[in-house]
Amino acid sequence: MGIIESLQAELGPRGVITDPEVMVPYLTDWKGTTSGPALCLVRPASTSEVSRAVKLCAAANVAIVPQGGNSGLSAGAVPIEGRRQIVMTFERLNTVRAVDPIGLTIEVEAGCILQTVREQAVAADCLLPISFAAEGTATIGGIVSSNAGGINVLRYGMTRAHLLGLEVVLPDGEILSGLRRLRKNNAGYDWKQLFIGSEGTLGIVTAAVLKLVPAPRETVTALMAVESPAAALKVFALAQRAVGDQISAFELISDTSIKLLKTHLGLEPPIDVTAGWLIVIDGASSLSGLRDAIETMLAEAMDHGLILDAVIAGSDSQARALWKLRESVTEAEAMAGGSIKHDVSVPISVVPAFLEATGHLIAGQFPGMVVNAFGHLGDGNIHYNVLAAGRADPLAINAIVHDQVTAMGGSISAEHGIGQYRRDEFARCAAPTELAFAQRLKSAIDPANLLNPGKV
Amino acid sequence: MGIIESLQAELGPRGVITDPEVMVPYLTDWKGTTSGPALCLVRPASTSEVSRAVKLCAAANVAIVPQGGNSGLSAGAVPIEGRRQIVMTFERLNTVRAVDPIGLTIEVEAGCILQTVREQAVAADCLLPISFAAEGTATIGGIVSSNAGGINVLRYGMTRAHLLGLEVVLPDGEILSGLRRLRKNNAGYDWKQLFIGSEGTLGIVTAAVLKLVPAPRETVTALMAVESPAAALKVFALAQRAVGDQISAFELISDTSIKLLKTHLGLEPPIDVTAGWLIVIDGASSLSGLRDAIETMLAEAMDHGLILDAVIAGSDSQARALWKLRESVTEAEAMAGGSIKHDVSVPISVVPAFLEATGHLIAGQFPGMVVNAFGHLGDGNIHYNVLAAGRADPLAINAIVHDQVTAMGGSISAEHGIGQYRRDEFARCAAPTELAFAQRLKSAIDPANLLNPGKV
Repeated sequence: MGIIESLQAELGPRGVITDPEVMVPYLTDWKGTTSGPALCLVRPASTSEVSRAVKLCAAANVAIVPQGGNSGLSAGAVPIEGRRQIVMTFERLNTVRAVDPIGLTIEVEAGCILQTVREQAVAADCLLPISFAAEGTATIGGIVSSNAGGINVLRYGMTRAHLLGLEVVLPDGEILSGLRRLRKNNAGYDWKQLFIGSEGTLGIVTAAVLKLVPAPRETVTALMAVESPAAALKVFALAQRAVGDQISAFELISDTSIKLLKTHLGLEPPIDVTAGWLIVIDGASSLSGLRDAIETMLAEAMDHGLILDAVIAGSDSQARALWKLRESVTEAEAMAGGSIKHDVSVPISVVPAFLEATGHLIAGQFPGMVVNAFGHLGDGNIHYNVLAAGRADPLAINAIVHDQVTAMGGSISAEHGIGQYRRDEFARCAAPTELAFAQRLKSAIDPANLLNPGKV
Repeated sequence: MGIIESLQAELGPRGVITDPEVMVPYLTDWKGTTSGPALCLVRPASTSEVSRAVKLCAAANVAIVPQGGNSGLSAGAVPIEGRRQIVMTFERLNTVRAVDPIGLTIEVEAGCILQTVREQAVAADCLLPISFAAEGTATIGGIVSSNAGGINVLRYGMTRAHLLGLEVVLPDGEILSGLRRLRKNNAGYDWKQLFIGSEGTLGIVTAAVLKLVPAPRETVTALMAVESPAAALKVFALAQRAVGDQISAFELISDTSIKLLKTHLGLEPPIDVTAGWLIVIDGASSLSGLRDAIETMLAEAMDHGLILDAVIAGSDSQARALWKLRESVTEAEAMAGGSIKHDVSVPISVVPAFLEATGHLIAGQFPGMVVNAFGHLGDGNIHYNVLAAGRADPLAINAIVHDQVTAMGGSISAEHGIGQYRRDEFARCAAPTELAFAQRLKSAIDPANLLNPGKV
C-alpha cells in the first residue's frame, strides 16, 4: 500500500485530498512566487490523526509541510522542490476549546483563525494583543510556528510572550502535551520555547493556550510630523517617559511613503508634513489620564522643536483614518511598481544611524534608487524597501542591507521569519557557531529531516 | 598534570581556590541542608577564561557546577555526591557593560548582583522589573538559569520575558554568542530560550542583555481584608477590569499567616481582619488616575461585599509597612518551628478550589496539621506550606500536595526550580514523554553530563 492509500485508510476520504485543482492554493505561497509539489493534502481532524499521519509518513520517509493560513511572507509553509512530501493543513482542527476570563487564558486548536480567537477574547471582555494585517487568514499554528509580531509588540511582545501552553506532534508521531494554563512554571526545561518560531521544522503545533490581557478601556491615536528619524527617536524616548508602557504602537512613515500614498492612493495626512516624516502612535489604558498624558507629551515635544505638527484623533473613525496612512504604505508601494523588501531590526537607539548609513551605501552603489523605510520604530523593526524593483539586482541590494544590519548587531528577519526566501542570506549572515548549534538541535529532534524541509 | 594544576596554569592563582575553608560556603546551599564535594573553586574573569576552563574540565571528564549568588531555594547550584567536579563562580565576571536608556536595554556579565543592575537601571531613569527577596545576593547568571520570578511577574513576566540577548559557554567550551539588543528577531531558532530556566545543565551563562521598562511615575499600595480565597479571586478579577495591567502585584496572606505575624513578630495589620485573609496590591503607572482607579475599585468591591475593610498607603513608609506583612511571613513561619514547603502554581481561577481540596486531604490524613498558604495569587503561584515540621513525613505531605497540583494542571515548581530538592517529585509527577524529550535535549547538548549533574 502506498503512502496515499495508507493515509486514506487512517484518516478517511475527507482527510486526504489528491485532486490537483483543489491542491493548487496549498502548494503556492501567498506572494505567488514560490511553489512546490506534494503527493497529497492531508487534513487531520484531531491531534491523534496528526500523530497517526506523521507516523505513516515517517515510516515511508515522506516529509511533512505543516501549513496554517498560508499568509506568511517568507514561503515557510509551502513545499520545496525535490522531496517526496505531503502538505498538512489544520482547517479541520479549529475549535476554540475554552476561555477563562478570570485567569485570562484561551485554549485553541492549531487551525483556529487568529481573528476568530481575538473575537472570542473580546466576547469575554479580554484582549488577545496579537494583531497584524493577515489576522483574518493566519492561524494559531502558524503564528506560534513563526512567532508572529504585529502592531502591539512594543507593549505586549511577540507571540512567544503570550504562549502559556502547547501541544506538538514530534517527527516520530509522539505527542508532546503541555496545554498548561500557568503563569509561572519552572518545573523542568521549558521545551515549548523550542517550537515557537522554528517554522514547523521541529514539531507540528496542534493546540495552544494563549495568555489574554484585560481589555483597555480607552484608546488614543495620534499623528505627528517630524523632520527626520533622529527626531522621531527623541519623540519615542519622550513618549516612553511621559506615557510609559501604555504606548502600544509607535510607527514610522517615511517621506517617500507619504509621496507614494498621495500619488497612488490620494491619501493625504491631516497635518503639515512638508519635507517630513510621520509617526503614528496608539496609547491604550484602563486609567483615566491617558489622553492628558499624550497631550502633554505632544506639547512638550512641540516646545522642544521635536515635532512640527500633530493631531489627536477625536473619534474612532478619525483614528482609523490615521492608521490607514500607515497600513496603506505596502499597497501604495505595489502600485508604484513594487520594491525589494527587507524586514530587519536593529537596536532602537541606532535606527537613525542605520537608515543614514544604509541610504549612503545604496545611493553610492545604485544612484537614483529610492529607499522607502517604514515600520515599527518602537521595536527597532524597519521594513527597509528599495523601490523600482527590476532596476537592480535584488541579491546585491539584499547584501548591502543585510551586511549593514549585521554590522549593527541587528537581525535580517525581525518578524517575517526565514522560510525559503531568506535561507541563503541567513546562512551567509549568521554566526557559524549559532548555525551549528541550530543544526545540532534539528538533528536531535528530527534526524531524518521529515518536518518542513528546506526552511529556516 | 592534574586538573587543578591545569586550571591554575590557565587561570592563574586568583582563578583557582583550593583552600577548604574558603570553599565551604560554595559547597553548601543557602538553606544549609545540602552540600557536596568539589576538587576546587574556579573563578574565571572573562568569557574566554570560562571557555578555557570548561575545555580543560571536559577533557578530564570533570563536571562543572555553575554558581551565582547561591541564594536559590532548590539546591540547584551546589555539588552532588559521587562525582568529580569543580564549582565555578562568576564573582570576577561582574561588569555592567552598557545601559541604553533610549532603547531600554542593559548588558551585564553573569556575576553582576541583581540589585546592582536594578540600581544602574534606576540611575538611567528606567526599571528592571525583576525583584525578589534575595536580589542583594542573586546574580544575573543565576536568575537567567533559574528563570527567576518575584513580585512583579503579574505585570512584567518572569526573567524570560526580559531577556533579549545571551552569551553561553557550551559543555565542550564553545562560546555561543548572541548578545543582541533587539526587540524582535525571528532569524533562526531562538536558542537562548533553551538556557533560560535549565539550571545550568545545558550551558553556562556568561553575559546577558536585559530589557528595561520606563520607570513608572506613581506607585499605589493597598491592603484589603477578605473572607476567603474565593473572595480574593473575585477582587482580582475586578482589579484586572478596573485598573488593567497597571496592577503589578496581587499577593495573598492567609488567616494562619496573620496569626503567625502577630504571635511571633508582633506585626498587626492596620485594618480589621477578624476571621479573614489579606490581599496586598501594588499599582504603578506613569498616568495620573491610578489612585482614583484603585479607590473606585475598592469602593466597588466593598459595595459587592467582597472586601471587609481596606486601606491605601498614604506614604512610602506606609506602603513599606503593608509590604512588611507579606514579606515577613516566611520569617514568622521559621519562628513558629518551620514548615514543609511547596512552591506550586495552578491556573489562577482554580486557586480557591485547589486550597480547599488540598486542605481537606491533609486534614483527613494528618489531623491537626495546620496549612499556611500565601503568595502570588495574581500568578496562580501559592507557597503552600504545612506547619509543625517534624510531626509528619515530609514526603507524604509532598505527595498529597503535588498530586493535587498535578491533577489540577499545575506545576510543582512555579518559581524556585527543581534543583536537587524536587528531583524525585518531578520525576514522579512529570509526563514520561516530557521527561524523555528533556533527556533527548540534554543528551544532544551535554552528552557526557558535565554541566551541573544531578539537577532538574
